[in-house]
Amino acid sequence: MSPIPSSTTTEPMRSFMDRLRDRWHDADTLVCVGLDPEPAKFPARFAGQPNAIFEFCRDIVDATAPYACAFKPQIAHFAAAEAEEALRMLILHIRLRHPHVPVILDSKRGDIGSTAQHYAREAFERYAADAVTVNPYMGRDSAQPFLDHADKGVVILCRTSNPGAGDLQDLLVDGKPLYQHVAAKVAREWNEHGNCALVVGATWPEQLREVRAIVGDQVPFLVPGVGAQGGDVRAVVSNARNRDGDGLVISSSRAILYASSGDDYAEAAANAARALRDEINLYR
Amino acid sequence: MSPIPSSTTTEPMRSFMDRLRDRWHDADTLVCVGLDPEPAKFPARFAGQPNAIFEFCRDIVDATAPYACAFKPQIAHFAAAEAEEALRMLILHIRLRHPHVPVILDSKRGDIGSTAQHYAREAFERYAADAVTVNPYMGRDSAQPFLDHADKGVVILCRTSNPGAGDLQDLLVDGKPLYQHVAAKVAREWNEHGNCALVVGATWPEQLREVRAIVGDQVPFLVPGVGAQGGDVRAVVSNARNRDGDGLVISSSRAILYASSGDDYAEAAANAARALRDEINLYR
Repeated sequence: MSPIPSSTTTEPMRSFMDRLRDRWHDADTLVCVGLDPEPAKFPARFAGQPNAIFEFCRDIVDATAPYACAFKPQIAHFAAAEAEEALRMLILHIRLRHPHVPVILDSKRGDIGSTAQHYAREAFERYAADAVTVNPYMGRDSAQPFLDHADKGVVILCRTSNPGAGDLQDLLVDGKPLYQHVAAKVAREWNEHGNCALVVGATWPEQLREVRAIVGDQVPFLVPGVGAQGGDVRAVVSNARNRDGDGLVISSSRAILYASSGDDYAEAAANAARALRDEINLYR
Repeated sequence: MSPIPSSTTTEPMRSFMDRLRDRWHDADTLVCVGLDPEPAKFPARFAGQPNAIFEFCRDIVDATAPYACAFKPQIAHFAAAEAEEALRMLILHIRLRHPHVPVILDSKRGDIGSTAQHYAREAFERYAADAVTVNPYMGRDSAQPFLDHADKGVVILCRTSNPGAGDLQDLLVDGKPLYQHVAAKVAREWNEHGNCALVVGATWPEQLREVRAIVGDQVPFLVPGVGAQGGDVRAVVSNARNRDGDGLVISSSRAILYASSGDDYAEAAANAARALRDEINLYR
């Protein structure tokens, strides 16, 4: 791997939310580049390379950073390949080389308080992520160890992008679907430090509109599901942007990472990220 | 670490559910030993030992195996300490030395289908666990990659043991709390392979009774919350056992692991596990 030191002195950083807002404005982009490494889809030049996961993701990061408001590594893709060290190095690389682009660790954690503290350590200390995705099913005390990190982002599942999202999330509570109660609880009760965001899938444009109406302008949405999952960019932006024309972290993974399987993979990824940025900006 | 081979040929194993039922009967125990390593609580002899997490857990496993129907390593405690290899070695050790005691990896995973496949690989291939805990919030398709492993156990969060469990789980849907809908969905729809279990906390005896009434005798409960969290053993067993007097995997972690901080830690753990087994068996 490249010679990045295992620890480094960095200046005190602004909070995740401040950095995200800075990035929206300074780089004029709402694109989040999802880092879901699948070695079987890597270009041929990575075959048999021992550090392929780190090197492929690093190349994607370096190529797409100008168009990214955030990077989102998905931890299962690293864990299944025993690539924790590649994940740690990748986040450190982003922090050193692209310090204006915050990192959301997509791990969808959730457990009782004492265990959630260990998950918070995993995300914020071991990996030095700026934000983490959290599952709300176990209730507020399971999220509290994350929420207590006021400078970190806590991105809570609300209406997820998968086809089965509605199995629980659409069950009606007092005449309204469960995900709307989650949105209201997060915005009104869990967001004391102003560090909460919500996951709402691009595949559900009406639900995006409803959740925006519930939580107002200050809670950002992490929106997966454009690209391979089929979400419509225009509907996402029209329905879910806030009054400033931002408030969105629109994530694309496969359509950027695997835009080309040839030696032009990095350039193709940059082109895909730029094209998504431009398409989003058309509708802001 | 001790010289355990990194891979080994094992005979084809019976399913998790069959092995769990065998173990209930053959060892006459419903105790699950939770493996939540906290190096700060280890006996002094482990201070500064590079493999302390593996060695402490291995000693606990060897001492408590006669009284255990399952072991339950909690993955955050390993991940926060960068101890994935210790976790892998520990599960391999259990499989080789205590092959009749199945392993439930407590990771509470949940994500969209393509990512859930990576989590299933993590649990069942990388760590060779026999069962895994899963969060139901994202719906059935997020659980399906686990459910498809018919020989593995899928232990789904229903009514968790933490004080904030009710924030979402008690919201009323058609007059019944959400956790009862989860129980019914799992028992009637998700359990096609007969490999589902439910997490219901020992801290909620009435809810244990209600969930047992909904799911019948064939769905085991993983019951955390006796010991440090204060759940009452008698109420758990009375309310939640099935007609065979089993159907329960009653988990205790801290009260067993840290029963003594002296050099008698293993013996003290064995005594605590045996005492819990005996207390449970009083009420079966």
